[in-house]
Amino acid sequence: MGDNVKRLAILGSTGSIGQQTLEVVRSFPHRFQVMGLAAGTNIELLTKQINEFGPKLISIESASGRERLPSSTCELLSLEEMASHPDVDLLVIAVTGKAALAPTLEAIRAKKSIALATKEVLVMAGEIVISEAKRHNAQILPIDSEPSAIWQCLRGEERGVSRLILTASGGPFQHLTSEQLAQVTPQQALNHPTWKMGKKVTIDSATMMNKGFEVIEAHWLFDIPQEKIEVLIHPQSIVHSFVEFVDGSIKAQLSSPDMRLPIQYALFYPERLLSDLPRLDLVKIGALTFEAPDLEKFPCLELALEAGRKGGTYPAVLSAADEVAVELFLEGRIGFLDIAKLVKETLEQHQSTPCHSLEEVLTADAWARERVGIQG
Amino acid sequence: MGDNVKRLAILGSTGSIGQQTLEVVRSFPHRFQVMGLAAGTNIELLTKQINEFGPKLISIESASGRERLPSSTCELLSLEEMASHPDVDLLVIAVTGKAALAPTLEAIRAKKSIALATKEVLVMAGEIVISEAKRHNAQILPIDSEPSAIWQCLRGEERGVSRLILTASGGPFQHLTSEQLAQVTPQQALNHPTWKMGKKVTIDSATMMNKGFEVIEAHWLFDIPQEKIEVLIHPQSIVHSFVEFVDGSIKAQLSSPDMRLPIQYALFYPERLLSDLPRLDLVKIGALTFEAPDLEKFPCLELALEAGRKGGTYPAVLSAADEVAVELFLEGRIGFLDIAKLVKETLEQHQSTPCHSLEEVLTADAWARERVGIQG
Repeated sequence: MGDNVKRLAILGSTGSIGQQTLEVVRSFPHRFQVMGLAAGTNIELLTKQINEFGPKLISIESASGRERLPSSTCELLSLEEMASHPDVDLLVIAVTGKAALAPTLEAIRAKKSIALATKEVLVMAGEIVISEAKRHNAQILPIDSEPSAIWQCLRGEERGVSRLILTASGGPFQHLTSEQLAQVTPQQALNHPTWKMGKKVTIDSATMMNKGFEVIEAHWLFDIPQEKIEVLIHPQSIVHSFVEFVDGSIKAQLSSPDMRLPIQYALFYPERLLSDLPRLDLVKIGALTFEAPDLEKFPCLELALEAGRKGGTYPAVLSAADEVAVELFLEGRIGFLDIAKLVKETLEQHQSTPCHSLEEVLTADAWARERVGIQG
Repeated sequence: MGDNVKRLAILGSTGSIGQQTLEVVRSFPHRFQVMGLAAGTNIELLTKQINEFGPKLISIESASGRERLPSSTCELLSLEEMASHPDVDLLVIAVTGKAALAPTLEAIRAKKSIALATKEVLVMAGEIVISEAKRHNAQILPIDSEPSAIWQCLRGEERGVSRLILTASGGPFQHLTSEQLAQVTPQQALNHPTWKMGKKVTIDSATMMNKGFEVIEAHWLFDIPQEKIEVLIHPQSIVHSFVEFVDGSIKAQLSSPDMRLPIQYALFYPERLLSDLPRLDLVKIGALTFEAPDLEKFPCLELALEAGRKGGTYPAVLSAADEVAVELFLEGRIGFLDIAKLVKETLEQHQSTPCHSLEEVLTADAWARERVGIQG
């Protein structure tokens, strides 16, 4: 095995990002050894992945799932144990929401390279995660299209940034009225016009909470004040974000909407490798359009921006309340517009505290999860 | 005077690029000492510039003009002498066409930093200029919006380029029929929809010869095979060019169409300085559109691409024939479509030779200038 083979572990291997990460691995079989796979409940797919990639380390959330795994010589670990395992060089973190936080911190302390897909980690605990990453000299490599675009535009441009402009497809409901939004079903909301993603992030895209998370995430990832980060609706999802510099020049990163590109970019950074990902045909696309986001119709974006500005434990409460509300919506127990309503009520009831430890984050998270839906 | 003051000379100070360069100097008065100004025949403006910037070195094309200059302690030099003068660190080359070639080579041999606006230099003699620049370790900094865009997109990305995509506004005549094109007057052709430029380059934009020149220029500047350089019509002139990488990712550089930005970028490279140049408002712009160029309606583009592919002395003949034909058009002696016709006929009559010395370039140039308009 050569020096340029990366020993990879994927937390969330059966999810959308996990599966697409394994597609990238299939395209470059000589550059990776899959050391670890971690999944939640999809034992069938995990079993297939184990048979194909032969990982040494396995993590599985459900106890019953563990029993249904094929008997093998794999070592069964917790997410935290896998994240800090000495045989892992590069860790993809793509489990949903809060579950990603503790493994990310373990990986940082073990000085791993961390390809981070779960934006909630930085929304909940950006200050802690980034200061720990600096302290331990661990590299955080974003694997989502917007932060990857910014990261690419900042290459060779350490100084002189004046503004980040995050693009948003706007999701499937940009042109619905508020009355129509109230009637939206989970199935409609899961039908994203340009991106193939997991359920939680697809709903967050439809409410635009996702874009608010990305603003907070970009603030921490790129050390840019939140007031210098803007959001722009771009329905085609071709320009993945912009960086403006102090001289007035703007750089953009574009591609066909395909998550494998930011995954590949992060896994090989700083190398760019020849891929067979679809090429962009700008003549065929014809027009790239831009409009301002409608904060009244999509209040989740404004809620997120406000929580980010206030800081403290507000973003952790935002993230927790959203996670619960999205679950309630997917279960058909609340309407689409109730997601913003529940998150707003929870934030209004919250007394923020400074947020310098994982315990403080988890306390706020637990408070919010209990509180969602209870009138103050 | 601090270490970060650049001693600047401008060849073509009364032209469009020259004047806009001096606007940049006015915005950063403590960063430049204007050492030299060179002009053609606009003595009135040159006199004003001398009074404002107090250069030590002057060059003026017309003998009668020299006598009309205010008596001063300035030293009168040729373009070549100014280009290689020991008191000049940074040279802006913005004289039109062939006149820029010899001074560029002198500046290279004197190891100056060269901010090059005159694309004909690289069209006529790209191989010679670039190999001399490498040999003498002289830096060539492009100051036109498209090559500057590519240069900015390549920052921090030395490897892995798969394609350059140069944008073209298409000029004022994209949607005219061939019959209408035949009737175009010089005044109509000089009225460019998005850019404020000199006469020669404005006519070259209207015929799209300019974009062909830029393809050849980009090939030499960035060491990219010509077949990997494409042209895309983008009427808004907001995206100044694109670079595609081997992984399928594309970077673009955007700004309001204002030549002071690429000038400032070149003059301060690699620094980006805070400027008061207009900021881009993408919501106000709304849509960026793209279409394929029409090579039949704009044959100059195809003529340039073909001359570039064939190499040898063809590009020098292309440039010379175009310079004469544009002059004839501006004088009202030929029609708009005759520009392409004359250039084509001249190229067809030419016997190319390898092109390794300035003399060979100048011989081909002289041949073409005599030949334009003479049937073979």
